[in-house]
Amino acid sequence: MIIDILEIKEAADRIATQAVRTPIIESAQLNADTGARVLIKAECLQRSGSFKFRGAYNRLSQLSQAQRRAGVVAWSSGNHAQGIAAAAQILKIPATIVMPLDAPEIKMQKTKEYGAEIVTYDRYTQSREDIGKALSKERGATLVPSYDDHHIITGQGTVGLEFLEQSLALGYEIEQLLVCCGGGGLIAGTASAFSQLSPDTAVYSVEPDSFDDHKRSLISGTRESNAPDARSICDALLAPEPGSMTFPINHALLTAGLSVSDAEVRDAMKYAFSTLKLVIEPGGAVALAAVLAGKLDVKGKTVGVVVSGGNVDPVVFSESIL
Amino acid sequence: MIIDILEIKEAADRIATQAVRTPIIESAQLNADTGARVLIKAECLQRSGSFKFRGAYNRLSQLSQAQRRAGVVAWSSGNHAQGIAAAAQILKIPATIVMPLDAPEIKMQKTKEYGAEIVTYDRYTQSREDIGKALSKERGATLVPSYDDHHIITGQGTVGLEFLEQSLALGYEIEQLLVCCGGGGLIAGTASAFSQLSPDTAVYSVEPDSFDDHKRSLISGTRESNAPDARSICDALLAPEPGSMTFPINHALLTAGLSVSDAEVRDAMKYAFSTLKLVIEPGGAVALAAVLAGKLDVKGKTVGVVVSGGNVDPVVFSESIL
Repeated sequence: MIIDILEIKEAADRIATQAVRTPIIESAQLNADTGARVLIKAECLQRSGSFKFRGAYNRLSQLSQAQRRAGVVAWSSGNHAQGIAAAAQILKIPATIVMPLDAPEIKMQKTKEYGAEIVTYDRYTQSREDIGKALSKERGATLVPSYDDHHIITGQGTVGLEFLEQSLALGYEIEQLLVCCGGGGLIAGTASAFSQLSPDTAVYSVEPDSFDDHKRSLISGTRESNAPDARSICDALLAPEPGSMTFPINHALLTAGLSVSDAEVRDAMKYAFSTLKLVIEPGGAVALAAVLAGKLDVKGKTVGVVVSGGNVDPVVFSESIL
Repeated sequence: MIIDILEIKEAADRIATQAVRTPIIESAQLNADTGARVLIKAECLQRSGSFKFRGAYNRLSQLSQAQRRAGVVAWSSGNHAQGIAAAAQILKIPATIVMPLDAPEIKMQKTKEYGAEIVTYDRYTQSREDIGKALSKERGATLVPSYDDHHIITGQGTVGLEFLEQSLALGYEIEQLLVCCGGGGLIAGTASAFSQLSPDTAVYSVEPDSFDDHKRSLISGTRESNAPDARSICDALLAPEPGSMTFPINHALLTAGLSVSDAEVRDAMKYAFSTLKLVIEPGGAVALAAVLAGKLDVKGKTVGVVVSGGNVDPVVFSESIL
């Protein structure tokens, strides 16, 4: 269930020549503003603009030659799409991505630039699973889920492994770790790494208030769904419920779930713009938002914050910083 | 004249506990778009939002106790102001900053937040030197120039030292180095470091087209001025002419001067937003702009680009990315 640290280390070796070992960013101003030592793992600086490249490359690089020729199919609101498309381009694998009609323009455009074919659907009336499965069957292509996949979760776990290695190299031990949560793949892999190498670290999921399925599921112990009419600017975190593979891991390893409002997300994006000089997308900003909005008592602690991506439409970004 | 590498190393030790060892950012997309290996030294992630903190802290930390009590005076369009104010706050030194009335609001506000007193003047009719000198005399305070000062240039030289150390650690040798240029302090210190540790690196200054005084001065061999009515969005690079201390260094060490238009600067800021996920201010983007706009043949080369700062008004930033 929990991903073995040896597998995460193998994944780290597998992606090493292609993925960015993203830096840890520390800001004197952020430390002063929070009363904590905040270490940011800046996955917005990752290839394809988010952590998703890690899992995608880890998964696709393990396909056989025959599987590579037959291509891959994935569904995604955008970051998994770009991660898959970027990895497929490197490995010369044909990729088809099923994307919601209302996915951010920048994510659609970049996915096309990586050479992938895009098939659109209506997020609120059609099933991306059905469309993806039909395409995959029709073409003999491999379906690559965005979180309920062992190799994807393992690849995302390299975020945790790196964060640990880099913070220890700086002489810091992360006491509290905040990670954004959509389907739960990033936090499942990351929490797996921490549970084996730094078991005393408390790991928290962070979600939009209206998509707080993990927060509620961690309390109830079963997978709770979000309201079908829920909306949030965090387009990367709109999964309907915790993943079937990710939730058992997260239920076993997470301390608790936190959530933030869209307004708090915008404030965090503005803070990142003016103080950190980082471009963070809404979904990538929830963990920082939780710290800035005081959702957790961080005073005097060493706090790890994963900033998961920076693929944001210019209009949405401008509205947030003005 | 040229700053001794031992002095730059001493400065690096002096600022080590307070300044950020800013990361080198490499982007597969940027490499593909330019046909080069481009290494970005991201000084936008520096404390106070630009490299200026380095020189400021190096200078202020060497003042005597009596000098610290009497305070410091500086003039600056913004980044030196913030660097001085941030360093003075840490060292508990009273700081007064003479700033142009049209300095970006964000730079004025941040300077105030660091606890400095601000005195404004009209950039086009008044002399900041006269105002600063009068204030310094009146208060017995130390004047801290933004570039024509040995310890300031030496502190900025730590950018070059770090860039060299970090690129070598990654296994790369920088063949061409592009650095923005206002008064010329950053590039004088940085070129000093490279000339002693990597003498084969060709170092280029980059300026706005309308403030290309270094470009012309490097050709003529004497300090040429900019037109009094010249304007540019690069508020950090509006010095009227090369510095009296910096120019002899730059004349001895630089290969040539390059310049870019305001439109090319905006394009680079937009590229940094959408592809690099970095917030770069206009003046901080000129070196990247020169590479993206093809001002130098970089194909097949390892190219170092200093991104000097990220203190940009939200309105200016939004206009550039939309």
